[in-house]
Amino acid sequence: MSRKITGVKASAGIVIGKALLLDNSDLHIQSVLVEDTGAETSRFREALEKAKEDLLDISERVEQELGTEHADIFRAHLMVLEDPELVDTVQAKIEQEKVNAEHAMHEVAQSFISLFEQMDNEYMRERAADIRDVTKRVLSHLMGVELSVPSQLQDEVIIVAKDLTPSDTAQLDRRFVKGFVTDIGGRTSHSAIMARSMGIPAVVGTRDMTREAQAGVTLIVDGHEGIVIIDPSEKEIAAYQEQQILYDKQKEEWAQLVGTKTMSRDGHHVELAANIGSPLDLDDVLANGAEGVGLFRTEFLYMGRDELPTEEEQFQAYKQVLEQMDGKPVVIRTLDIGGDKHLPYLDLPEEMNPFLGFRAIRLCLDNQDLFRTQLRALLRASVHGNLKIMFPMIATLEEFRQAKAVLEEEKQSMQDEGFVFTQPFEVGIMVEIPAAAMMADMFANEVDFFSIGTNDLIQYTLAADRMNERVAYLYQPYHPAVLRLIRQVIEAAHAKGKWVGMCGEMAGDLVAIPILLGMGLDEFSMSASSILPARQLISRMSRDEKAKDTEQILSMSTSQQVEDFVKTQLAKTDN
Amino acid sequence: MSRKITGVKASAGIVIGKALLLDNSDLHIQSVLVEDTGAETSRFREALEKAKEDLLDISERVEQELGTEHADIFRAHLMVLEDPELVDTVQAKIEQEKVNAEHAMHEVAQSFISLFEQMDNEYMRERAADIRDVTKRVLSHLMGVELSVPSQLQDEVIIVAKDLTPSDTAQLDRRFVKGFVTDIGGRTSHSAIMARSMGIPAVVGTRDMTREAQAGVTLIVDGHEGIVIIDPSEKEIAAYQEQQILYDKQKEEWAQLVGTKTMSRDGHHVELAANIGSPLDLDDVLANGAEGVGLFRTEFLYMGRDELPTEEEQFQAYKQVLEQMDGKPVVIRTLDIGGDKHLPYLDLPEEMNPFLGFRAIRLCLDNQDLFRTQLRALLRASVHGNLKIMFPMIATLEEFRQAKAVLEEEKQSMQDEGFVFTQPFEVGIMVEIPAAAMMADMFANEVDFFSIGTNDLIQYTLAADRMNERVAYLYQPYHPAVLRLIRQVIEAAHAKGKWVGMCGEMAGDLVAIPILLGMGLDEFSMSASSILPARQLISRMSRDEKAKDTEQILSMSTSQQVEDFVKTQLAKTDN
Repeated sequence: MSRKITGVKASAGIVIGKALLLDNSDLHIQSVLVEDTGAETSRFREALEKAKEDLLDISERVEQELGTEHADIFRAHLMVLEDPELVDTVQAKIEQEKVNAEHAMHEVAQSFISLFEQMDNEYMRERAADIRDVTKRVLSHLMGVELSVPSQLQDEVIIVAKDLTPSDTAQLDRRFVKGFVTDIGGRTSHSAIMARSMGIPAVVGTRDMTREAQAGVTLIVDGHEGIVIIDPSEKEIAAYQEQQILYDKQKEEWAQLVGTKTMSRDGHHVELAANIGSPLDLDDVLANGAEGVGLFRTEFLYMGRDELPTEEEQFQAYKQVLEQMDGKPVVIRTLDIGGDKHLPYLDLPEEMNPFLGFRAIRLCLDNQDLFRTQLRALLRASVHGNLKIMFPMIATLEEFRQAKAVLEEEKQSMQDEGFVFTQPFEVGIMVEIPAAAMMADMFANEVDFFSIGTNDLIQYTLAADRMNERVAYLYQPYHPAVLRLIRQVIEAAHAKGKWVGMCGEMAGDLVAIPILLGMGLDEFSMSASSILPARQLISRMSRDEKAKDTEQILSMSTSQQVEDFVKTQLAKTDN
Repeated sequence: MSRKITGVKASAGIVIGKALLLDNSDLHIQSVLVEDTGAETSRFREALEKAKEDLLDISERVEQELGTEHADIFRAHLMVLEDPELVDTVQAKIEQEKVNAEHAMHEVAQSFISLFEQMDNEYMRERAADIRDVTKRVLSHLMGVELSVPSQLQDEVIIVAKDLTPSDTAQLDRRFVKGFVTDIGGRTSHSAIMARSMGIPAVVGTRDMTREAQAGVTLIVDGHEGIVIIDPSEKEIAAYQEQQILYDKQKEEWAQLVGTKTMSRDGHHVELAANIGSPLDLDDVLANGAEGVGLFRTEFLYMGRDELPTEEEQFQAYKQVLEQMDGKPVVIRTLDIGGDKHLPYLDLPEEMNPFLGFRAIRLCLDNQDLFRTQLRALLRASVHGNLKIMFPMIATLEEFRQAKAVLEEEKQSMQDEGFVFTQPFEVGIMVEIPAAAMMADMFANEVDFFSIGTNDLIQYTLAADRMNERVAYLYQPYHPAVLRLIRQVIEAAHAKGKWVGMCGEMAGDLVAIPILLGMGLDEFSMSASSILPARQLISRMSRDEKAKDTEQILSMSTSQQVEDFVKTQLAKTDN
């Protein structure tokens, strides 16, 4: 009988096929006392070398098949194996405790893994997955066990696994893999990212898929809704096949839009840009026809390491993005980090309310060395493309003026050193604090642009932490108070000839887009996968018509009213 | 040589006099093994009885000298001594561990004290002080030690102590006590409250005053600035004597204003009301000529106990306040509590950002039994005075509608039970979330009044936790964004014929008052001690003239600009 499992929608699309259960459960490690610790150490070193050879092979193959960025993961794994903190600790454990290499490696790795996993930071939790992956590879060599990933597949399959590590996916024969379903992971887990880059549907975080599904059973994976149907009925199969055809047709339509400018039906251009978290995301951005990068989050440079990134490291990352975007605008946000993220080299105090705390520009203005290094890297990179610099969490004009002054100082000192700025660049702010939205008319005299960060703006405007499920119902993007603030910002900016973008999740929301288009938003920055659907929707709407609805929407009293109104309008557009 | 010590300003005024060091340091407790635990238990019970006799004596004397409310503290102490959780635990400890009563009492009390002290809640920390006070009393009887408070004083003195417990102050001969200086405590500590009710200057929280001052040294206590000068020079004494005379003159002027209505120079009446935390505060409120209670915080009813307060208990408290205010308006706020306060009988989850969490009306709408009990108590009390009911933390119209609907249901059911409502009462909301301020025009159709809670409104508008010292600089009451929101609320309310009050600290701030008066704020609710200075200031200002400054102020770009402007204007008023 058909059963339905829900999870996190990780990659869009629908697929119907047979399940292949990947048994990548943990190896069973025993602790044994050894007499000859020298021999044990050699055994460990040999396994280490074999694991490195594997990784070199894999990274070469992946580079050819998927490109440099994906191969970087395996080069990172190689670095883990060369990390003296790991290797020396394992050897010391073998020698001092006279235990077998398997046990020593497992124990040491486990302590690193649990350290990373406890962090309230998705990026660091993913690093734990890397260590787990590498450790398993070393252990498999020590124990003479083959890793269970089938590199030879004969038929098309949907991979069902507890989780998929980079090594797992690298070894799969992509021609036959049509979808992923995993027990754990979120939208930014490796399996989710891989599925999106392979363009196959995926549902992750299902909790117990591996327990529920038998090998060979038929599955329907609905990546749009985050649903998996195990052993579906004929009727269900027929219904999903129909949806699949519609979706394929839609994908074809979207594909037509990749190279086009985003134009409303009545001929107004708006810019659809992408939010990125690292240069790795760029392939996806370009494949989806983004007209720019509306938000480049620079936190990845600062996380998962023991010390601050150097100016050179930062410069290389910024330059890479600017060059790859080839003259299209790239808005780079300066460091947005605070007390809820653990950075070992910054001694940040624990805060009672980190979302109302010492973070982002507040922290940067107080740690000017860190800030100046980033600004210099940005200034150096500015000549390599169309850079726009954006300061996060600006609440007062004084903060903007201070940040701008530091930037000007660094610019001046670089000019004094002989650096020639060949490209002009804009300097703007995130509008994510109600005070900044209320004062947009004053800011508009001094900034070059605004980018509305709705994720935070909504939180502060409604005074509700959206990560807190008991008040998540108050995270209301369509709340008229939020919409009034957004309109206020757009009007104030346009009165001074400045442009306004939006880089919160709302910018890619198909219900919000008609409202924002009507209000005159100039740039919409969203996840790459949302761009083509948004472009298609906008091409079907008249901006001038939408503008006529603005007053009516702003005089509604609840979020629900707004949502109902827009959905009714959208239904008309579809017909 | 003169030395200056700074602390927390706890009670206004200036006094110059000799220091009396109150050595109320902790008793030194030793742990001794006892054989006859029965005899030890009897000894403990005797000490307990003597302590109870003391407390009865003190409470009677205090009741005669200071009134019922102050005597309540000692009745609360009596209840601590009758609490089986304390008494039985001490006896069990004596019997099981065969230790002396002093040690057992001390250990058990200490565990309660540290429990309370760790709470992030000033009220509960004060309960720790009660237990400490009672424990010391019992221990002094066990050890045959006299408590060191001199009940016979010959000369006027300034009391210097680590802290002052209710027992300490009850035993002091008030005729000779002219000021307090303590090492610990904040504005709501017992010593601060007593000083204000005795009308003597006090500086608390000086950290090391008891180490710095010698018995008999001359002190200047400046309760306006929170400064103590030890061993002042003749010049300093002369300067402060002059200030003292000016202040005494000012106090006389203020005293003239106690029974008067608050009128601006050009004849507009505004209401100056008081914020209270319990019925104990009412003497102070009436002595300072408040025209009403603008905010009665009901949390005290829920804290420091093991179970929810009954409808009857709540009714008695509300009735007492309404009756004592004798027809003057009393705005009672429904429960405003959340994840940062520990209530043993409510299982509240820990939250990452409690200020953006599940609290106040959010919690009440989800715990309707608790909410309905409070509403019934309020409805019953409504016939005893001029009640107005106010809901806190309203973010959306739906929340207000739900809360109002619950109130109407309870009203209906009480009417069905035969209860007759003889008094109409208003129902309003706190405006402390930016969304509510932005939507004031919509709310104004449905509420009877607004009260702007600036403490939270400023925090959310600037996205800065004011308890977090690293971002406290962003807590800017005069920030134009905050002022714009306030003006928006006042205009929206007046357009619909509704009144607007303010119950945050800003309402009593002498720099904010001219701005708020000019904007047309109808009611200012503040701590009782701020009322007469505010009344005097308003009497010297023309509301219509202040109104002319509003546009100019709202077109300023920073808090500093606003503050400078108003201070310049105020200097003119003073001349």
